[in-house]
Amino acid sequence: MASLLRTHYPWTRTPFLASAPMLGAATPALDASVSKAGGIGFLAGGTKFDALDKDLLQVASILEQSKSELANEAHVLPIGVGFQLWGCDLSVAVAAVKKHSPAVVWLFAPTDDAEFGRWSREIRSVSQEKPKIWIQAGSVARARRAMDLAAPDVLVLQGSDAGGHGFVQAASAISLVPEVVDVLASEYGGGTPVLAAGGIMDGRGVTGVMALGADGAVMGTRFLASDEAGIAQGWQRELVRATDGGISTGRSTLCDRLKETVGWPPHFDGRAILNKGHEDERAGMSDAENVALYKQQLAQGDDAWTPHGRMVVYAGTGVGLVKEVKPAAEIVHEVHVGARNATQRATSACSASEPQAKL
Amino acid sequence: MASLLRTHYPWTRTPFLASAPMLGAATPALDASVSKAGGIGFLAGGTKFDALDKDLLQVASILEQSKSELANEAHVLPIGVGFQLWGCDLSVAVAAVKKHSPAVVWLFAPTDDAEFGRWSREIRSVSQEKPKIWIQAGSVARARRAMDLAAPDVLVLQGSDAGGHGFVQAASAISLVPEVVDVLASEYGGGTPVLAAGGIMDGRGVTGVMALGADGAVMGTRFLASDEAGIAQGWQRELVRATDGGISTGRSTLCDRLKETVGWPPHFDGRAILNKGHEDERAGMSDAENVALYKQQLAQGDDAWTPHGRMVVYAGTGVGLVKEVKPAAEIVHEVHVGARNATQRATSACSASEPQAKL
Repeated sequence: MASLLRTHYPWTRTPFLASAPMLGAATPALDASVSKAGGIGFLAGGTKFDALDKDLLQVASILEQSKSELANEAHVLPIGVGFQLWGCDLSVAVAAVKKHSPAVVWLFAPTDDAEFGRWSREIRSVSQEKPKIWIQAGSVARARRAMDLAAPDVLVLQGSDAGGHGFVQAASAISLVPEVVDVLASEYGGGTPVLAAGGIMDGRGVTGVMALGADGAVMGTRFLASDEAGIAQGWQRELVRATDGGISTGRSTLCDRLKETVGWPPHFDGRAILNKGHEDERAGMSDAENVALYKQQLAQGDDAWTPHGRMVVYAGTGVGLVKEVKPAAEIVHEVHVGARNATQRATSACSASEPQAKL
Repeated sequence: MASLLRTHYPWTRTPFLASAPMLGAATPALDASVSKAGGIGFLAGGTKFDALDKDLLQVASILEQSKSELANEAHVLPIGVGFQLWGCDLSVAVAAVKKHSPAVVWLFAPTDDAEFGRWSREIRSVSQEKPKIWIQAGSVARARRAMDLAAPDVLVLQGSDAGGHGFVQAASAISLVPEVVDVLASEYGGGTPVLAAGGIMDGRGVTGVMALGADGAVMGTRFLASDEAGIAQGWQRELVRATDGGISTGRSTLCDRLKETVGWPPHFDGRAILNKGHEDERAGMSDAENVALYKQQLAQGDDAWTPHGRMVVYAGTGVGLVKEVKPAAEIVHEVHVGARNATQRATSACSASEPQAKL
């Protein structure tokens, strides 16, 4: 499977690493850096072709030389584009694929899973290069449905630790990955690579999910704390400050309500740092008042991002492992080195041994 | 650290594996089987010395020969005993340690974490053999508190995937383990072994948490589906039947209310298979009615355990990986073999590689 991934995405190194398609945060510079470092970066598409077109042109421009080197074997732009189906137009995806040939289109969060079938069929049909289709799932049932509806080239399994939008109900990668891998092997011939997402911050997490059966990993929160991420400095300060994400973050739909985002299917919420807004909500504050206070604070700009403030700080449970904002390429490099160290550690810790005293 | 564990528990093999102290379910036969197979089994103590004394005598009797072989180097009974501090008497623990010298006393769920200090001091002082103290934590903050209050010999980190009682708010092992390991290294000299629990069902999970930085693993749900577990056959049928634990199980305090268990500190709830009782509660049914219906069904004995019934089926998110009830020794053996396979898999998947095409 590792060799399949390296054939399909020939600029990548092992272990296989992707940066998540985080709307707004995943800039052309971030994605280009991740791909140049041997991972694969993802833009997030929306409802406007012009915005995505501009981003893709910018990636192409950064990677201009790279693209021509790759062109011999695969006429693709060596990044991917992710779409939250409930809020995106298929026509935007189709136009972007026609014009730019991204290597991957990643599908996520349809209102109805049947959309996976329509999107994947149309996207595969518009380009000679047949962009790879990745589908994100958060349970065995949804993984099976994605396989049946769209036979994706890669399944991305998002566990409960993930920051930002995700499934209200989910296991972590610890049990989700091996169970899905077993189902793929027994029911689908086992040829579909699986990537794990959620709580993975460094090489230890990547090796961890590989041991569980994944073929690679996706990191979101860690790349939010990269030089190239398109988020407020205050948000990045909070990512570096926060620790103990199991208790300092939580899942809720409050952040959507504060931002007045409407349309996420009901089985999604988002993991973010728990703040004053969450506390006020628990104490009975109405959404109207909470939104008003949020907007007041938002108007303060970068200074609004304080501990126990009201800003929306999406972050996974691994936020305590984020100690520094650094270039995305450095993050990718550290993951590669860290993963090999973790592998050696696990090997020596799991090596066969006879007990010193026999019972 | 692996060698430290093998010195302290000389009958164990690597990777280091413990069965969880599950009240009622962890029988003397289960614990003896786990320890004989190269793991370490745990009984659960309660408020009555007589019951625990009887269990410990039975373990000693099963392990009689074993105990004498071990006696040369460590005069301990090669199993441990776990105590939920909020509902247990320290005097019971002290008496059990005096009489039986279990290798480990595992402390969990005090009403106030300060209890960890008192319990560990008293238990360590009553026996020449100084039983090892293990403390279970579910966050970085609680891990730190346990270290400060009791300097445990082992920290057990329970992630959000765990079945049965656990922390309302927690990360999974994916991020909890590496963050705690880093804190132990930077603030406590790094000499304390860490075990991971929650969602681990086979060798892949064990290798996964070792890659994340743990020194071993604890499994609960998997051992519930062992021949020796002291639970209803119906419960075991449900463990084998259920799949997709991220959505088929959930965290709630309903099971305590159904069983009329009073006293768990408010930061604990339990993960169990979601059933008719949970559904009725969501639809507005009162506890009184839910309890009455639960008791009605309970009276049906083994037949009461049906899919979508009302019985309490504690299970972790990895329940879908449980396919068969089998002898505990076989489970331990499969974990040891599976962990080595998973290590090899991760090693080959993470090995250094140059990209086939350079960007």
